[in-house]
Amino acid sequence: MTNPMQDKKRPFQGHQAKHFRFETDADGRVATITLNRPEKKNPLTFESYEELTDLFRALGRASDVRAVVLTGAENNFSSGGDVFDIIEPLTKMSMPDLIDFTRMTGDLVRQIRACPQPIVAAVDGICAGAGAILAMSSDYRLATPEAKTAFLFNRVGLAGADMGACGILPRIIGQGRAAELLFTGRVMSAAEGHAWGFYNALHERPALLGAAQKFARDIADGPWFAHTMTKKMLDQEWAMGIDQLIESEAQTQAICMATGDFRRAFEAFAAKSRPEFKGN
Amino acid sequence: MTNPMQDKKRPFQGHQAKHFRFETDADGRVATITLNRPEKKNPLTFESYEELTDLFRALGRASDVRAVVLTGAENNFSSGGDVFDIIEPLTKMSMPDLIDFTRMTGDLVRQIRACPQPIVAAVDGICAGAGAILAMSSDYRLATPEAKTAFLFNRVGLAGADMGACGILPRIIGQGRAAELLFTGRVMSAAEGHAWGFYNALHERPALLGAAQKFARDIADGPWFAHTMTKKMLDQEWAMGIDQLIESEAQTQAICMATGDFRRAFEAFAAKSRPEFKGN
Amino acid sequence: MTNPMQDKKRPFQGHQAKHFRFETDADGRVATITLNRPEKKNPLTFESYEELTDLFRALGRASDVRAVVLTGAENNFSSGGDVFDIIEPLTKMSMPDLIDFTRMTGDLVRQIRACPQPIVAAVDGICAGAGAILAMSSDYRLATPEAKTAFLFNRVGLAGADMGACGILPRIIGQGRAAELLFTGRVMSAAEGHAWGFYNALHERPALLGAAQKFARDIADGPWFAHTMTKKMLDQEWAMGIDQLIESEAQTQAICMATGDFRRAFEAFAAKSRPEFKGN
Repeated sequence: MTNPMQDKKRPFQGHQAKHFRFETDADGRVATITLNRPEKKNPLTFESYEELTDLFRALGRASDVRAVVLTGAENNFSSGGDVFDIIEPLTKMSMPDLIDFTRMTGDLVRQIRACPQPIVAAVDGICAGAGAILAMSSDYRLATPEAKTAFLFNRVGLAGADMGACGILPRIIGQGRAAELLFTGRVMSAAEGHAWGFYNALHERPALLGAAQKFARDIADGPWFAHTMTKKMLDQEWAMGIDQLIESEAQTQAICMATGDFRRAFEAFAAKSRPEFKGN
Repeated sequence: MTNPMQDKKRPFQGHQAKHFRFETDADGRVATITLNRPEKKNPLTFESYEELTDLFRALGRASDVRAVVLTGAENNFSSGGDVFDIIEPLTKMSMPDLIDFTRMTGDLVRQIRACPQPIVAAVDGICAGAGAILAMSSDYRLATPEAKTAFLFNRVGLAGADMGACGILPRIIGQGRAAELLFTGRVMSAAEGHAWGFYNALHERPALLGAAQKFARDIADGPWFAHTMTKKMLDQEWAMGIDQLIESEAQTQAICMATGDFRRAFEAFAAKSRPEFKGN
Repeated sequence: MTNPMQDKKRPFQGHQAKHFRFETDADGRVATITLNRPEKKNPLTFESYEELTDLFRALGRASDVRAVVLTGAENNFSSGGDVFDIIEPLTKMSMPDLIDFTRMTGDLVRQIRACPQPIVAAVDGICAGAGAILAMSSDYRLATPEAKTAFLFNRVGLAGADMGACGILPRIIGQGRAAELLFTGRVMSAAEGHAWGFYNALHERPALLGAAQKFARDIADGPWFAHTMTKKMLDQEWAMGIDQLIESEAQTQAICMATGDFRRAFEAFAAKSRPEFKGN
């Protein structure tokens, strides 16, 4: 018997990306995206914006990938939108083209948040502009002590309100600290980022990627269907009253309790064995 | 002359609880609820969920209780839902029964938040699963350095979205830290909990309950009607725009300014004496 | 050719305030408001509430002022509403007058948030009641180690829900810490305020005002039109879902990309010179 919902899914293992590196573990469960124009500190371009957005959207139909690591090549995360590749053309566009562009960049954040896989950012060196936004949009953030994170939109004459930053960053580090970063574009040091709850932990360079992939692996081998619901609800409840969010979670958790994963987790607990999570 | 609103109220002093301990101070103003199945680290059961929910709902009509301390017996707060008493039956239920269960547990959080009395959690040792939710749902949280707090729903194959955690926890400790705790179920140490604003203060074991009851006593002997409004508004404004919340508080404070408590507080200040708050 | 939108604007340089000091830099870009009844620690009165509210509303039409510093005279910020000037009359008012008063005080916060200029609070010594609200309502907060900040409404029998505190303070320092401050009215030390993200930085007394004016100057000489949009969006998105706030920012940033400031910032970058921001 076919399952039409499963039939629509496909493996991403072996997927070839054009404007960044895309690799998976041997079983395809953990994907690693590496921004890789290291000679320019891994900037984003019109093409990489679009391909990243399409990829995160498509990951909603993955049959294999359960968690994603997002990182940059050669000791930098990303320098954000390239000044000559992106900023210069924008200074000459008509309003309809401008709003097309800002909607395209915003759509990248939307797809990162909407895809079911938790996203783990592994940040080293420069993490600036749209690069800082990518880190902010992830679910779990690791950095090296050398990470320099800057929401530097005001440095090019723009507002801090870029790709959701004025709404998302205050929910991570508080309204006062977010305001300072967004008004000034100053670097948030790794130590500040850790103390403020932006970075979940710091690791030395040689350990960074391994720690991020370990976290992603634990997600992927754990109750990953339930994790997709955790991710969804962490966003879904921002504008809800308390009574509404409690009802929402009652429904969410009832869905999870109806899964075989929940039953198998109990049976494994009772048998003192390790549960196998199948996502159904 | 009778006052029909007051006539509906009744004292809770002397109230006997079945599935936990319920005690009050000599004047009934501070109630202490102690989860007390210490041999199993004070788990919650179907019966204690229901009785706690009913009690918090009923406290809305208390004529005496003005603040509540919530704690656990013998150096543990609560281990949450018992695996064999609660988890096992859930693995065999139909969806209508599952949603009845998740609504029942969510209703406990709703009643804790809706009852007018501020709730003070005194947390030692294990504070896990629904136990962590009880702490999270309180208004003021104290812990010992030995407190181990874990939102471990994912350990049994479930989502972190349990009883409001995905909506409430980020508002206390920020979105990034909450995501980590809810995806991993890892223990938040007492030191982390304090640094992150989950715990308001840490106390050594012998001092914990006394500190919690002192805080509750200050609430109970202070402007406790105004405190009920503070508690209400701290929840009420989560999904409001700034203009709306400013108008809401204008109305809240006008209500409080119309009370005798406000006038008596001023008169006591002018007379350099101690005000007596009557809640009217 | 006249520009009717610009024609409605007027300089505030030389503006004379009655109930506090109002001064500007030589070019009018940075205004400094100093609460100056130092013998009573700079309390607010019915008159100063109203004049402050009117001033912040009027600043929306300033042709010169781009940032505002808010401070207090002689080593105190503000003791808040005076007990005899404000509290005593309130204890005798009818409900319509009370709601008029609480709406007037709330309107001060609303106008501080609504005016386009970022507000920098420079806080020393006593910062209590409505004084603490003024600091909370600012965009960037500096303090001395001697700053004592207290939301002490409950000390006069009132709720912590005053002028938006139950909605705004938790977004700055988290729900748990805000609850403690609003239930107890206790002093938040400068060190706590800094660690919790209420104060952006601490400075010794002799350096405080200079640091605040330096920050305001950088705002005023930077992309100040874009900064007005950053300020607006930092408030605007509190009650939005994530998809809605991303679309909102796409529109915000498209507006900023259509300005000459954006083009000039790029051109200056390309020419390795310093951009001049004109606010158009």
